[in-house]
Amino acid sequence: MFLKNAWYMAGWSETLAEKPQGIRMLGEKIALFRLENGEVAAIGDRCPHRFASLSGGVLVQDTLQCPYHGLRFDRSGACIHNPHHGGIIPPGAVTRSYPVEERHHGIWVWMGAPEAADPALIPDLSMLDAPELVGTRGYLHVPADYRLVIDNLMDLTHVNYLHPLLGIEDAAANTRVSVEQEGRDVWSYMWTDGSELPLLFQMLWRGPKGNAKMRGHMRWTAPAALLLDSGATEIGGDPGASIFLPTAHLLTPETETSTHYFWTQYRDVLTDDAELTQQIHAGVAHTFATEDEPMIAQVAANMDGQDFWDLRPAILNTDAGAVRARRLLAKLIREEEAAAAKEPEGAGRAVESALPA
Amino acid sequence: MFLKNAWYMAGWSETLAEKPQGIRMLGEKIALFRLENGEVAAIGDRCPHRFASLSGGVLVQDTLQCPYHGLRFDRSGACIHNPHHGGIIPPGAVTRSYPVEERHHGIWVWMGAPEAADPALIPDLSMLDAPELVGTRGYLHVPADYRLVIDNLMDLTHVNYLHPLLGIEDAAANTRVSVEQEGRDVWSYMWTDGSELPLLFQMLWRGPKGNAKMRGHMRWTAPAALLLDSGATEIGGDPGASIFLPTAHLLTPETETSTHYFWTQYRDVLTDDAELTQQIHAGVAHTFATEDEPMIAQVAANMDGQDFWDLRPAILNTDAGAVRARRLLAKLIREEEAAAAKEPEGAGRAVESALPA
Amino acid sequence: MFLKNAWYMAGWSETLAEKPQGIRMLGEKIALFRLENGEVAAIGDRCPHRFASLSGGVLVQDTLQCPYHGLRFDRSGACIHNPHHGGIIPPGAVTRSYPVEERHHGIWVWMGAPEAADPALIPDLSMLDAPELVGTRGYLHVPADYRLVIDNLMDLTHVNYLHPLLGIEDAAANTRVSVEQEGRDVWSYMWTDGSELPLLFQMLWRGPKGNAKMRGHMRWTAPAALLLDSGATEIGGDPGASIFLPTAHLLTPETETSTHYFWTQYRDVLTDDAELTQQIHAGVAHTFATEDEPMIAQVAANMDGQDFWDLRPAILNTDAGAVRARRLLAKLIREEEAAAAKEPEGAGRAVESALPA
Repeated sequence: MFLKNAWYMAGWSETLAEKPQGIRMLGEKIALFRLENGEVAAIGDRCPHRFASLSGGVLVQDTLQCPYHGLRFDRSGACIHNPHHGGIIPPGAVTRSYPVEERHHGIWVWMGAPEAADPALIPDLSMLDAPELVGTRGYLHVPADYRLVIDNLMDLTHVNYLHPLLGIEDAAANTRVSVEQEGRDVWSYMWTDGSELPLLFQMLWRGPKGNAKMRGHMRWTAPAALLLDSGATEIGGDPGASIFLPTAHLLTPETETSTHYFWTQYRDVLTDDAELTQQIHAGVAHTFATEDEPMIAQVAANMDGQDFWDLRPAILNTDAGAVRARRLLAKLIREEEAAAAKEPEGAGRAVESALPA
Repeated sequence: MFLKNAWYMAGWSETLAEKPQGIRMLGEKIALFRLENGEVAAIGDRCPHRFASLSGGVLVQDTLQCPYHGLRFDRSGACIHNPHHGGIIPPGAVTRSYPVEERHHGIWVWMGAPEAADPALIPDLSMLDAPELVGTRGYLHVPADYRLVIDNLMDLTHVNYLHPLLGIEDAAANTRVSVEQEGRDVWSYMWTDGSELPLLFQMLWRGPKGNAKMRGHMRWTAPAALLLDSGATEIGGDPGASIFLPTAHLLTPETETSTHYFWTQYRDVLTDDAELTQQIHAGVAHTFATEDEPMIAQVAANMDGQDFWDLRPAILNTDAGAVRARRLLAKLIREEEAAAAKEPEGAGRAVESALPA
Repeated sequence: MFLKNAWYMAGWSETLAEKPQGIRMLGEKIALFRLENGEVAAIGDRCPHRFASLSGGVLVQDTLQCPYHGLRFDRSGACIHNPHHGGIIPPGAVTRSYPVEERHHGIWVWMGAPEAADPALIPDLSMLDAPELVGTRGYLHVPADYRLVIDNLMDLTHVNYLHPLLGIEDAAANTRVSVEQEGRDVWSYMWTDGSELPLLFQMLWRGPKGNAKMRGHMRWTAPAALLLDSGATEIGGDPGASIFLPTAHLLTPETETSTHYFWTQYRDVLTDDAELTQQIHAGVAHTFATEDEPMIAQVAANMDGQDFWDLRPAILNTDAGAVRARRLLAKLIREEEAAAAKEPEGAGRAVESALPA
């Protein structure tokens, strides 16, 4: 159950250099490579000749050379060189090409009909571009349906139970939530008043102890990009004591049952402390890998392949944001499938039908 | 193919203390926890909110607190505390509860309709309660259908081939078997005359060498509890030289293709020797894990998902007990399924239909 | 998709001594054992009693004794000894027997109707029996459909891309191919003129540098035996400088998705150098295991269970041999299946129908 006409993160920009990379997105295997002019190309990662993974090959003059028999493919997915005697390029020697954009330090790939790829639809993460911020970026593989990761992120009250270093169990009763929806965005707001600050906040907090109001306002943008306005302010006190710790959580379904999770952790305090940045990176990566990922994987295992709603989950007030996101996403997917069914035959498969038979 | 209306072992009593435990039985995930009064509770091990495993949580005042968002469930399976702002407990926040009894050092769970749970149906292992006995208890996980483990145990002639330390290959021809059936019990009797004693018996034997008659009388009680009256007596000699080494073999299907195997090894000789008890424990555990378990797993693999009878097994005289047990078990399962099919709709799902929609 | 009426390699002769061995071929589990007279027997590797693997047992006077309950089976697959009290051998205590031949240092098993087993149909590898040759034999397990391994071998132009030590990338344009077909054989011829010699050839080459013509003429014999006439000669020069490096590549489908790959590497130069033989063995084994096997496994994964032709592969000139082999093999399998369908009922299952019901 994927929304195809959407941009999904395929990787952080800094991780793609002269070596091509393979990634599976929405079940499709994609080869990424960087051209000499710095642009990124994304083509189907299966050679149309004998089905080797092109991402295992080498870059030769802006083409990807297949590691098995040496055919070369350009950014359009077309084979433009057969190195063997005669050098004839047969019909059908072409793989799919995907629209790619680079923005917010990420490589975004459009998984739907290429003609519908509009860069304006890339989720707006400009909150993270504020010049006073420094931070770090990471990646986690989660063996579960991406919607379970969205559920996790849209209800941050789990932090108080699952993450001893990021939350405080006693804070649950003092934590209020609310929800807003607009277009393809759902905001899940969360405030905690007057509780002790959790460890990560304590490390960065500049005001008097015990008088802070924490916030964790998560914005989900369909299908799977989440942006968290996280921070703390002094209650009735010095606005200068406030801290701002925004993060992004960019999910890309790998398959129906596994997810790429790209994350950032930024801050506006102690920004000169590079060692602190490393410590925070290690702490966040460890928390996600040892607390969130096993929990989400366990939930997926406990669901045993059944549909989420068929299991009739009990719904708490704190689920409002996650439920809204699930419903909007399901609606968008239904609409996309209905539109595809209405199209004249073959229109939805423009790329394949352009191939020689 | 499980008999649901039956008691199955969920663990040895001594292994359940202040930490909850999860176990899968007949395909169902169950959370076990011990109350402050010492009683054991067994509830469905999937939180009805977001499907986390409750057994991964902590015990709080006789409730199990979900590790994901902190809901608390009592022994009836009902959520009785929502820690979040407002604290409303929504409809449907309930999981299944299972009847539990503790007997013969074991925790027994009733997997069928709760109203049919009768403690008198717990298999009678009182042979093991004789005050002159000491011994040890263990556990083995077997990656095979539990009926293959029953087959293994109901035909102990395999001991002479599979277990060099527990049997003697030359004893096969001197070993006689017979069978009796009564109610839900099948006895598979086995005697060996005048053979050399196998190693375990030699360690414990008090009579003259080479003049012993060994017995291994196995009682299977449907669906999967086996009790072995094992021992040796001097032929025509001093009854005081006899040794009594009874054991239990309590099988609980985990899934259609895997089995929990709880075992005991008791003895009436050298009962003050605690070090010997440890040696016997280690020897039995090693034998089961390195000889029985791989063989049964191999048999399961060789059957390749096919039905036992469809494979038309050759039947030896020595299979009589195993065949009777298989047939009685199949008959009981057929009767249970026929009875369930006759019930008015919904009656067989009393627990679920009691839940708020 | 297997051709059943054919001889397949089950192992190198030297690897079967006094211990029985199990191997899965065409999905069937087979136990191999060597009789006292040196002949090899092959019987179904599942005891008809309780389904243990007979190959895990011991040899007793030309019979295989089951490791579970001690039944003994002779080379005809019949149980000829029940060691238990009474010793009655029940009807049905028989497993399948397979025709076996030993030739070309290999054990060949006929997987089809026993009455059709004609030793004359064993692939002719006598090219390797030339007295001037020395060499080495090896084995590789490949987690892919055997036809993908045939594809790999019938188009050796891959060597220039996949094997830096055995090929030379620049040689692709100078390499010509052609194809011949006769009966159940397809020859895929390959010549490379005037290129630098790859490392393996350099080690053995006796003529002047840079003036050699290499050949790699592969003969495929249905269903899965390949013989390579590989070597180099001096262009217009001393015939004595030529080298001859013939190899065999004998494939046996293990299952639909895995393959036993038995190989040889022979040579007619430096034949006294046993250390060189070991070096070549290690080099070839390493190349196959780290370059071919991962590539073929990757191709299989990328095909995702789909049929080869349904994926509409682009066909190059260099694919001619592989395509011919695929088509001939498919035709032979279709013919075999059509013939089986025409037979009177039961005739195709002679072995099973001979069993007591």
